[in-house]
Amino acid sequence: MERPVDVDPAWMKRVEDVASRLESSPVELAYRLVRASDTKLINMASGNPDPEIVPVKELSEIAMEVLSALGYEALVYPDAGGLEELRKEIRLYMAREGVSIPRDYDIVVTSGAQHAFRLLSEVLGSGRGDVHVICESPTFVETLAPLKLRSEVHGIPFESGRLDLDAMEDTLRALGPGRALIYLIPTCHNPMGITMDEEDRRRVLELASEYEALVIEDEPYRAFSDSQPPALVTMDEERRVIYVSTLSKVLAPGLRIGWVAAPAEVAGVLTKLENYDITTSTLTQHVALEAFRSGLVDSTASELRDHYRNKRRVLEESLSEHMPPSVAWEPGGCGLFKLITARGFDAEQQLAEAIRRGVIYVPARKFFVPEGEEGSMRLSLGPPTPDEIAEGVRVLSELISERTGA
Amino acid sequence: MERPVDVDPAWMKRVEDVASRLESSPVELAYRLVRASDTKLINMASGNPDPEIVPVKELSEIAMEVLSALGYEALVYPDAGGLEELRKEIRLYMAREGVSIPRDYDIVVTSGAQHAFRLLSEVLGSGRGDVHVICESPTFVETLAPLKLRSEVHGIPFESGRLDLDAMEDTLRALGPGRALIYLIPTCHNPMGITMDEEDRRRVLELASEYEALVIEDEPYRAFSDSQPPALVTMDEERRVIYVSTLSKVLAPGLRIGWVAAPAEVAGVLTKLENYDITTSTLTQHVALEAFRSGLVDSTASELRDHYRNKRRVLEESLSEHMPPSVAWEPGGCGLFKLITARGFDAEQQLAEAIRRGVIYVPARKFFVPEGEEGSMRLSLGPPTPDEIAEGVRVLSELISERTGA
Repeated sequence: MERPVDVDPAWMKRVEDVASRLESSPVELAYRLVRASDTKLINMASGNPDPEIVPVKELSEIAMEVLSALGYEALVYPDAGGLEELRKEIRLYMAREGVSIPRDYDIVVTSGAQHAFRLLSEVLGSGRGDVHVICESPTFVETLAPLKLRSEVHGIPFESGRLDLDAMEDTLRALGPGRALIYLIPTCHNPMGITMDEEDRRRVLELASEYEALVIEDEPYRAFSDSQPPALVTMDEERRVIYVSTLSKVLAPGLRIGWVAAPAEVAGVLTKLENYDITTSTLTQHVALEAFRSGLVDSTASELRDHYRNKRRVLEESLSEHMPPSVAWEPGGCGLFKLITARGFDAEQQLAEAIRRGVIYVPARKFFVPEGEEGSMRLSLGPPTPDEIAEGVRVLSELISERTGA
Repeated sequence: MERPVDVDPAWMKRVEDVASRLESSPVELAYRLVRASDTKLINMASGNPDPEIVPVKELSEIAMEVLSALGYEALVYPDAGGLEELRKEIRLYMAREGVSIPRDYDIVVTSGAQHAFRLLSEVLGSGRGDVHVICESPTFVETLAPLKLRSEVHGIPFESGRLDLDAMEDTLRALGPGRALIYLIPTCHNPMGITMDEEDRRRVLELASEYEALVIEDEPYRAFSDSQPPALVTMDEERRVIYVSTLSKVLAPGLRIGWVAAPAEVAGVLTKLENYDITTSTLTQHVALEAFRSGLVDSTASELRDHYRNKRRVLEESLSEHMPPSVAWEPGGCGLFKLITARGFDAEQQLAEAIRRGVIYVPARKFFVPEGEEGSMRLSLGPPTPDEIAEGVRVLSELISERTGA
């Protein structure tokens, strides 16, 4: 008998309904293009950290030690909310990085920061449409996606490298009190690379207080500079800030270890919901625990600063040297990314040609809320070597010049 | 300045709203009690596999090999929907276990089966209240939980060890066509231990067809017996069955590797949603891949049959020898669990005393839909040795006899 071609239409309609609310990520698309490429690309698209920084050998030794010391215990079901010892080590590590998690906050271990946003969207999103998300525009498209599933989103633009906090206040006022969830990447912004200064951080907290908003502080890149302003969570006096971070940029994203620091009452509910997922590997939690205890996280964190600073210098110099005047960017910054915008260039359409010429970037139109300029591109400092960064920028600038005649 | 005690009340109300819809798992509670115990308990509560069966040394060697052969590549961000090679190996493994996944189905790798149910509840649950879940009563309380978040649930009772399919038909008829999602653990049921025969499986598929229902087949225990009836997914001619399985019982739950096999259109949406989580470790996916390729999964699967069969024999004999006549159970079965019910005994209330006497079980009232008898308990064959099983049953039977005067 021939199998019918279609899934039951009543059900397929429901599935398509969900699908229509899901967005494809331009970052995931870039990953797929890298894998599908016959030749090795200069990968300026990926958010993976530098291969030279990921301590493969040390992590391998730690995995061996964990399995030989704990055996079976490293391979059983994980505890809801994460290993207690790991949560303690995360708190200590945060303190060493200058982020003292308040005593009345608890840590919840998640399978990376992305998982944290999924949980937070369910715990804070309310599902009744009364919660609105305010975010930077541009922001990181992937972490925003789960928050968007349950809430309307309002993007706040940057003006000359500073978030327009007057515009944020206007949006907060229009929404009214107790309705806004402010999602920010204040330190080494993805994709902008810029850092919000202490004065602006103070104003964000004042606005949150005035309009009874909560703030989600997404901070994967604190370790990338030793002169960061204080984290919002440490300046907050009203328990309005929920803090999210991860080992993905400092150690290795493949472990899938991130965390949320939230007021204990909120953390309790996150833990309960996390036990509906049970996604975080016990083995990689123990590896992370030993990476903290052995000092590997600290030593990698201090090593990566100079490393990425050097790569960023190469990027800045290459951009200045090669890019035509139609291309704009904010100088300096920190973290893994930089956003550049080429007037008159369609970054999505030209991606295939860039790949043919050996370079891949992430078209960044969808990082904006609402969607932004076609010519915006996110460039990553993770996978490419300094020489590849220089060459990648040269190739891109050629392509942009050809296409824009500039 | 003193920090205010409370989180902003408007937000706390939302958080509590979500919390009120989340249920605490009696299984998670038992795990916490085991950890909190000063003495080593006879652990008849945990769903972890037998420590003697989990191939710690081999997994440790594989982890080393993976990290030395792949290095950085084993530690980068995972692909949406899982490693392609792993999805291929899962399909081959399923075929060797007698489950030929249809060609027009795709595999999606998840962070364990629990994660699969979370994704399925979002893709199929619709959120408009028009989807109802029909499940066995009892069923596995933890996998049911995410399905319950989005749908009303109807439990179908067992009659003398057989699911009452007439009752299922009545429920389907009452709901009307295209509205029911039938969730079943047909093979080595958790917590019952029983297996649905081929005739009943055929009738379930006929009912699904007649009432335009979909079926979620949850099958973590196929490897536990070499004489299983065919999986529903292989008998289905209308693409109505979505199949979920995991390495948690055959290899190790701490890896968090499970999978869904679903019609390609549905799998595509699951993959898109999975990329909103990004929870499955790249490292443990590569470990799982090598465990398949090296034959470790197959050899462990064939070893565990005799092992658990022997433990189940010990359990059966001990129950027959010691339990007072007020205690009932279905004889035989397979998988990791058995359900026993003691008339006149409050299993939740008496759990603390059982722990004092050195034994822990999971009170199973909440496994029923609606909630069932106070005297029901789930006993696990995973962690305890055969001697511990015998001793555990003896201690429990004493406690039950004392409390019920039977």
